[in-house]
Amino acid sequence: MGGPDNHFAQTPKPPYVAVIFTSLRTKADNDGYQAMADEMDRLAAGQPGYLGLESARDGEGFGLTISYWRDEQSAKAWKTNARHLAAQKRGRAVWYKAYHVRIATVGRDYASS
Amino acid sequence: MGGPDNHFAQTPKPPYVAVIFTSLRTKADNDGYQAMADEMDRLAAGQPGYLGLESARDGEGFGLTISYWRDEQSAKAWKTNARHLAAQKRGRAVWYKAYHVRIATVGRDYASS
Repeated sequence: MGGPDNHFAQTPKPPYVAVIFTSLRTKADNDGYQAMADEMDRLAAGQPGYLGLESARDGEGFGLTISYWRDEQSAKAWKTNARHLAAQKRGRAVWYKAYHVRIATVGRDYASS
Repeated sequence: MGGPDNHFAQTPKPPYVAVIFTSLRTKADNDGYQAMADEMDRLAAGQPGYLGLESARDGEGFGLTISYWRDEQSAKAWKTNARHLAAQKRGRAVWYKAYHVRIATVGRDYASS
């Protein structure tokens, strides 16, 4: 995944779609969770319309993950990807105590130089 | 700030505005940074149109903070709050190696039961 600067998604000019996934991890199955998270990051990156991913989780297990997509259609296609559906199911059963998903349209952005 | 469940913002039915702040901390002035971050959280919570805040930062100093607002107007008013402008200035000078801000409109959401 490279150095810390690569944490930033290199998104194009707005508009584009942001899927905001806010979650609180259980303490269960850390290895399984991490393996699946890595697989999902790789798999998402290969989907049509994928623009990037930003993610941070704190020491208490609370995390924010945002995936960026060209449009609603590509975001929805990723949500219904078969392997991703299996990951979501296991997430609900084992990995997440609670989560919240918000689908948003980015209209403006700016960054440090 | 309560228990970990309180990390989740209790936002109303969409639409509303999300200001996504992605940042990489320097290693400088941790105490000053934390004090200002706490002050800004409190100050933001008292602004008109404030709906909530979600934030996570990992062990490498990469973090996502999302503040939720009733509309673009209230999000902009917070951006230009005098005390907040001073915090932003010090952030650029001392606390952040890099950052990215995205202003988005949340159109849909769902959560774990």
